[in-house]
Amino acid sequence: MQIGVCYYPEQWPRTMWADDARRMAELGISHVRIAEFAWSRMEPRKGVFDWTWLDEAIETLAARGLKLVLGTPTASPPKWLVDSIPDMLPVRADGTRWNYGSRRHYDIASVAYRKECERITEAMAQRYGRHPAVVAWQTDNELGCHDTVPSYSAAAQQRFQAWLAQRYGSIEALNEAWGNVFWSMEYPSFETVGLPVLTPTDANPSHLLDFRRYMSDEVASFHREQAEVLRRHAPDADVLHNFMGFFTTFDHYEFAANNAIDVATWDSYPIARTEVIGVPEADKARYARTAHPDVSAFDHDRYRAIGAGRFWVMEQQAGPVNWAPWNPVPAKGMVRLWAYEAFAHGAELVSYFRWRQCPYAQEQMHSGLNLPNNELSPGGEEVAQAAREIALSETLRTLGAPAPAAVALVFDYETQWMFEIQRHGVGFDYQTLAFDYYSALREQGLDVDIVSRHADLSAYRLVVVPSLAVLDDAFIAKVEQSDARWLFGPRTGSKTTHFAIPGNLPPGPLQRVLPLQVLEAESLRPTLAPALSLGDVSGAALHWREHVRANEGAQVDATFEDGWPALLSSGRVQYATAWLTHDLHRALLGAAARAAGLDTQTLPEGVRLARRGGLSFAFNFGEAQVRAPAPEGAQFVLGAPELARGDVCAWRDPR
Amino acid sequence: MQIGVCYYPEQWPRTMWADDARRMAELGISHVRIAEFAWSRMEPRKGVFDWTWLDEAIETLAARGLKLVLGTPTASPPKWLVDSIPDMLPVRADGTRWNYGSRRHYDIASVAYRKECERITEAMAQRYGRHPAVVAWQTDNELGCHDTVPSYSAAAQQRFQAWLAQRYGSIEALNEAWGNVFWSMEYPSFETVGLPVLTPTDANPSHLLDFRRYMSDEVASFHREQAEVLRRHAPDADVLHNFMGFFTTFDHYEFAANNAIDVATWDSYPIARTEVIGVPEADKARYARTAHPDVSAFDHDRYRAIGAGRFWVMEQQAGPVNWAPWNPVPAKGMVRLWAYEAFAHGAELVSYFRWRQCPYAQEQMHSGLNLPNNELSPGGEEVAQAAREIALSETLRTLGAPAPAAVALVFDYETQWMFEIQRHGVGFDYQTLAFDYYSALREQGLDVDIVSRHADLSAYRLVVVPSLAVLDDAFIAKVEQSDARWLFGPRTGSKTTHFAIPGNLPPGPLQRVLPLQVLEAESLRPTLAPALSLGDVSGAALHWREHVRANEGAQVDATFEDGWPALLSSGRVQYATAWLTHDLHRALLGAAARAAGLDTQTLPEGVRLARRGGLSFAFNFGEAQVRAPAPEGAQFVLGAPELARGDVCAWRDPR
Amino acid sequence: MQIGVCYYPEQWPRTMWADDARRMAELGISHVRIAEFAWSRMEPRKGVFDWTWLDEAIETLAARGLKLVLGTPTASPPKWLVDSIPDMLPVRADGTRWNYGSRRHYDIASVAYRKECERITEAMAQRYGRHPAVVAWQTDNELGCHDTVPSYSAAAQQRFQAWLAQRYGSIEALNEAWGNVFWSMEYPSFETVGLPVLTPTDANPSHLLDFRRYMSDEVASFHREQAEVLRRHAPDADVLHNFMGFFTTFDHYEFAANNAIDVATWDSYPIARTEVIGVPEADKARYARTAHPDVSAFDHDRYRAIGAGRFWVMEQQAGPVNWAPWNPVPAKGMVRLWAYEAFAHGAELVSYFRWRQCPYAQEQMHSGLNLPNNELSPGGEEVAQAAREIALSETLRTLGAPAPAAVALVFDYETQWMFEIQRHGVGFDYQTLAFDYYSALREQGLDVDIVSRHADLSAYRLVVVPSLAVLDDAFIAKVEQSDARWLFGPRTGSKTTHFAIPGNLPPGPLQRVLPLQVLEAESLRPTLAPALSLGDVSGAALHWREHVRANEGAQVDATFEDGWPALLSSGRVQYATAWLTHDLHRALLGAAARAAGLDTQTLPEGVRLARRGGLSFAFNFGEAQVRAPAPEGAQFVLGAPELARGDVCAWRDPR
Repeated sequence: MQIGVCYYPEQWPRTMWADDARRMAELGISHVRIAEFAWSRMEPRKGVFDWTWLDEAIETLAARGLKLVLGTPTASPPKWLVDSIPDMLPVRADGTRWNYGSRRHYDIASVAYRKECERITEAMAQRYGRHPAVVAWQTDNELGCHDTVPSYSAAAQQRFQAWLAQRYGSIEALNEAWGNVFWSMEYPSFETVGLPVLTPTDANPSHLLDFRRYMSDEVASFHREQAEVLRRHAPDADVLHNFMGFFTTFDHYEFAANNAIDVATWDSYPIARTEVIGVPEADKARYARTAHPDVSAFDHDRYRAIGAGRFWVMEQQAGPVNWAPWNPVPAKGMVRLWAYEAFAHGAELVSYFRWRQCPYAQEQMHSGLNLPNNELSPGGEEVAQAAREIALSETLRTLGAPAPAAVALVFDYETQWMFEIQRHGVGFDYQTLAFDYYSALREQGLDVDIVSRHADLSAYRLVVVPSLAVLDDAFIAKVEQSDARWLFGPRTGSKTTHFAIPGNLPPGPLQRVLPLQVLEAESLRPTLAPALSLGDVSGAALHWREHVRANEGAQVDATFEDGWPALLSSGRVQYATAWLTHDLHRALLGAAARAAGLDTQTLPEGVRLARRGGLSFAFNFGEAQVRAPAPEGAQFVLGAPELARGDVCAWRDPR
Repeated sequence: MQIGVCYYPEQWPRTMWADDARRMAELGISHVRIAEFAWSRMEPRKGVFDWTWLDEAIETLAARGLKLVLGTPTASPPKWLVDSIPDMLPVRADGTRWNYGSRRHYDIASVAYRKECERITEAMAQRYGRHPAVVAWQTDNELGCHDTVPSYSAAAQQRFQAWLAQRYGSIEALNEAWGNVFWSMEYPSFETVGLPVLTPTDANPSHLLDFRRYMSDEVASFHREQAEVLRRHAPDADVLHNFMGFFTTFDHYEFAANNAIDVATWDSYPIARTEVIGVPEADKARYARTAHPDVSAFDHDRYRAIGAGRFWVMEQQAGPVNWAPWNPVPAKGMVRLWAYEAFAHGAELVSYFRWRQCPYAQEQMHSGLNLPNNELSPGGEEVAQAAREIALSETLRTLGAPAPAAVALVFDYETQWMFEIQRHGVGFDYQTLAFDYYSALREQGLDVDIVSRHADLSAYRLVVVPSLAVLDDAFIAKVEQSDARWLFGPRTGSKTTHFAIPGNLPPGPLQRVLPLQVLEAESLRPTLAPALSLGDVSGAALHWREHVRANEGAQVDATFEDGWPALLSSGRVQYATAWLTHDLHRALLGAAARAAGLDTQTLPEGVRLARRGGLSFAFNFGEAQVRAPAPEGAQFVLGAPELARGDVCAWRDPR
Repeated sequence: MQIGVCYYPEQWPRTMWADDARRMAELGISHVRIAEFAWSRMEPRKGVFDWTWLDEAIETLAARGLKLVLGTPTASPPKWLVDSIPDMLPVRADGTRWNYGSRRHYDIASVAYRKECERITEAMAQRYGRHPAVVAWQTDNELGCHDTVPSYSAAAQQRFQAWLAQRYGSIEALNEAWGNVFWSMEYPSFETVGLPVLTPTDANPSHLLDFRRYMSDEVASFHREQAEVLRRHAPDADVLHNFMGFFTTFDHYEFAANNAIDVATWDSYPIARTEVIGVPEADKARYARTAHPDVSAFDHDRYRAIGAGRFWVMEQQAGPVNWAPWNPVPAKGMVRLWAYEAFAHGAELVSYFRWRQCPYAQEQMHSGLNLPNNELSPGGEEVAQAAREIALSETLRTLGAPAPAAVALVFDYETQWMFEIQRHGVGFDYQTLAFDYYSALREQGLDVDIVSRHADLSAYRLVVVPSLAVLDDAFIAKVEQSDARWLFGPRTGSKTTHFAIPGNLPPGPLQRVLPLQVLEAESLRPTLAPALSLGDVSGAALHWREHVRANEGAQVDATFEDGWPALLSSGRVQYATAWLTHDLHRALLGAAARAAGLDTQTLPEGVRLARRGGLSFAFNFGEAQVRAPAPEGAQFVLGAPELARGDVCAWRDPR
């Protein structure tokens, strides 16, 4: 449990640096991230470097024992650089170029810009790669933020064509795979394939899907080019990138593959995130000052998988932010709570954004640990408290990693892309469905591992697949060879890898273990909510329902009032034919967990549990004061069982 | 009563064709439409034709006695063609071009592309024009779909200028007609007239109107160029085009004039259509699985007029579709019901879209008569039932055409354009008003002919004009020479043909038969609903109300509570000064019908009647089971009087 | 109290002019504005002038004793001119150009077009500048209308760069002022600074602010160039421009500074304005036919300040208009009432738009004093009544100017720009807040002067500052040197002139007189409404709330239920930490007024008072008939105390 901070020495007078470093160390901070937007100060003119200020900043911080995370500044190329490569500006869907004047103004397909990125990375790494205080390197910043992937440039078109040629070998194979005979969309050659944009009606979904795959690969290769430079010059440092929450533009599993990163880090702004994701308005209202109780945990569990067990929060919200439709002050306690929540889910480090609120430029309404006048902010006070608690507790300081959970939830980026390309009904969003499943599990006190479809799932007792567009034989083999209970949600197995309906109808290969077929699928207007009860829980289908035929060997476990099957199973494998209202999801997942031999509990509203290193943590995101569900005789190592809103406690169960 | 299907042999292995043909014939299908998107297969490279597959497909189908409708493939020009004429891509309002990659990616003003269309049409027609099985030819596909008319290209500008020169003769005449003295908009010459787009504020409405007229003419001439080729090479076949529902971008009466088509065909997707048109949300909810009971009938009656009595449904929804905001599965029975509904309104042929759901490309979530795995779909089963019923009934097989209705409703495309150009209040939509009138008539059991303002109206007993922007002397002469009762809605006679207010104020020439003047007109926010009662029916004005002065000879039949006249009449001619709530429209039109000597009935909710060839058909779109309003002693030739949701029956009245 | 009208002789046959002039004079009209859109008739071809028609029009009107206001026609450059300077068309944010075909199709940064404007102005002024009947000149028309400021052209970029060079002297100073070190946004030179548009995420707020300041200056200099020409040739005439309501794109105080205008005139369309501004939906519903009772008054009081006491209504709504989402007919009496309302607030002249409704072109649905058939319209009848009343009343005819009010409300354009650039929460709009304060004062019977932050405020008893982004020492000195009571709203003093947070935290320099600090600020979703009571009035914060610390010497006057201070004061100076619900604003401002020694009253809903020249006027915008709050013995010079909706009365208080 270590605490870090993001710091921008270039934004403050040098006279403040030494005092800043002293106060950071006294506060209990161990890591400081710097430099990721400072290209114009490192290289004020082409090839003219000024390292003096950065040398001084690093030495000042290191002198207080602080460890440094250095960021490559490639998210903010300076003006002289952009003016020397004008076509590095990314191209919007309407064909116009984005402009200089903020950040992320580069086309990820620009080879010329990529060379510049390698050059500045090499210059930094040569100078600081073996500095003993520099323990980690971050590439760029929040790749894909502000919807800057994709770019619709000529460069992107050429690289996409090359990517297609590599994937398909012949244009005939591409035409066949995409089904281009439909509407005479057949291409004579790879060189004639354009970008799937500005078509009078929908572009071919296979075209769109391959473009998304291509762009995802571009993001990964952009990082790898810098990572390779860093590996050469900073062989002992961790290489990482700071990902974002609820962000699916690229496949993070693929990004991280082959040791492209050492640790997954992500930027956690739970209140703003709650405001902008697809949770119901009632939840947004209820949790406006605490964030939804699962919104950070979902990404903690996701990035723990992406980092193969190692993850950090690189930027943690420290107070009100500036970018959501509304930006309230967090409820008292939340800035501290979010740190413990991250730790309980396995974070090694929670690094706050930022040391001091910057009084000028775009983010002046974004809080930090200090106010612009250098007083500790309310959030800063809470961080100081957490740091003191950890410093005083041997147990917390030396806590082991989380054990694998009994429940796995498969999350798949390609499924997100496919269902975005053809939602079929407005409001169908795969990630929102996956989150609803996740939340239903967490409300019942269960720890969850979020995993890739390629993960080894053999040790889990319950595997939950909210949906998975493409099923292959390898995945079905896992089902067959597992002892776990499996629950599949709607639209599973509904597509081939080329974005077509399987020849034997959805759920495609799943029929090997659960013989059912989807005859027709329907998207549902809000007023069209087919009713259903599971036990004493009533509800309805939302967004999506399938008309399914149970074939020989499939059992119908529940039906809608109009007679269509809602749940079907065969042995350990169950399938839900619709997106259900949340209470039904809770009933469904609770029953599945109990059938898998797991204990479930009914937690008070807004309360969540998480286990790590033999401890159980309880968090209260709810309005009311509650009692943590600790067993008789539990030993409290943090806080006490009575939890006000925004409070946290942790205990060791009695032997 | 014949049943057809749309089929795409190029999308399936040749090995399936013979079996498909056999199963079509066995199902009772008589007509098959093919080829309208297959240009890239007919002409894989410029001037290199491959007819072998199409020859085989035609022979395979013809061998089972199936009649063929061939489509020209001009809605989907292939990539090689587009690359050879880059400026044939249409131009969007913002000046950028639409891109290749879906369909309809052509500028209708491109002369070079039009020549290509004539060339491929001639090639097809030369080969198949006299084939005995080829009974009809469809030009292009859904002209204007995806808002691809208009294009804002240089070609369009030049052709628009020529069109204006033809219309006005001199630029002085144009400046005078448009009122260009206003805001110094006077043009020095036709060559300086631009397109009415991207103006800082509203363009001159006359400019916009003439551009809409020009584009409408372009659509008609595009079809005629192909039709002339087809007439030469296929002199015995029907020439047609498949129009769309609720589509007003071009004047369909003008399109069809001078025998440009032999039969009007249209594409009927009632559930998706209900979702996207301006009917109240309550109706969308109520009829989400059945479609609004008047939504197809409105276009059946409209296209019967456009086809001068002959119409087909070229594409009929066979299950859930893919393009509405939400796409539910139709209620049981509806796929069969929609066929009988079309027949009852006079359709010669109902052709379903499509034979088999295509598992790939853009429309993979669009159902067909067969599932992707080649099982008959639920909709396919219903079509088989209808085909069996028709095959078994001599009465149905040989049913005569519908008799002219007693009620005419005038629908006018130019009125739609004028009121779109100046809605005055958001939400004012002429077609929606016309539909509301139509629905109010149909709810009371009346058959309705929808007619052009140029039609011979002398035989009708009631003529309903929901609105008609421009009244001319010829139209007033029809009123004067008729014995019918006439009902005019608001905004009638409010414009001249040049889009100006008549010098004697609205309703302009109508004052000859009904002496009233509109002093002021107002558009109404939803909260501003002037109240009104007609008999025991209470309601209010919506969207639009006029402050009218009754001049000498006009009688005020009803007034709003604030004193302004709501209904005025003089003899047989009545005028409504406002858009009224639906119940008031029903009362108003019911009273008008009874005053014209017609019987009206109060049908149960969701029930509709239609008469053809001596039979009365009843359809139940409602939730509840109802009893059809058949007289004592009626002879049922289809079904029975008890109608569940989605059911239909037909009877012959006792003598 | 004089009545004018806008007239367009070029739009009517010459045969009508003499009769029009006669009827104007008989109606009681004194002033006629003409010519402001007639460039194509004054100069049909480049350099070829045709003054004959304008000579005749002027002489015809002058012959009836009418005074003329001539408009320069620069808002509608003719086609031949635009074709000769194609890049004078303004550029949209997406980089495309606006097109010819309506009005305002010019780039205000185009030097070539500005020269043309000087040329046509000089030609007009040479001909008519010393005509005895021409008493005033209007430049252009509604500068900035249709969002035509800004233009994102190359010309604008160059002039913006020059403006910046002038302002900052060195690029280093600009980089420092804008904080460009943030995100490496540092510019190497003024020539590399672009326009703040099309950036992937927010542009630097300082960049945006300076661009707004630059554009505001461009508008002012555009007017001044014409004004200088007019001063030379028409030394005795008033120079003016017709501003708009609720329009903040440029700083009107700066525009008017240094005698750039002689009188402020504005265009008042109260019903449409009510529909489009940010007042609550309930108010839009309640006042749909009368306009919100403060919507015109707010601008009357604002333009009275901008004109240094002299203001006119140049265009007054005379009936239904054409440009709001809905355009109802005004309630009976309103067209007359609005004239008296303007007079009561100090207007010298109320000029109606327009003499006769134009039956063609864009504004054909915009009413005038006459219908298109030349009958007096309902609004025209009301104007005739008002003119008769004034003609008959010596008191009204000779009424003196309004005395200064006891209450000043500071309205500041730059504050509007700053909070638009960073609203922080959707729905935060400074002008709407200022209007809510204004309305709360007016509901309690108070007259209000709206003033600039630079005004002399020493004579007021209550100064209300709804917010003021930038406080400087000069302003604080006014507070210190005043005896008045001061009330400041939220976000006051929250920015420096360079758009940064003050080093001592907000409210910055206000701390000198009221020692408090804003630690954190939050924007509030509608469901997050911190509760508060002031006396027996309950309500909540909306949109925005600050967490404030009362430092030594500040007193907390009221707190939210969650404990945060809502109102703080020190002596005569009070600060509200949040945007409050309207009832709380009324309580707050009422208490402040009474504390300042002013009388407040509780007026019936929809009733407003205004005093001028010793008279008190009462206006009834409400639904119910009410009794005006005249004292016993009041002498009525207009109307009577019983006021129906739409009625007005005026009395002199008894001695």
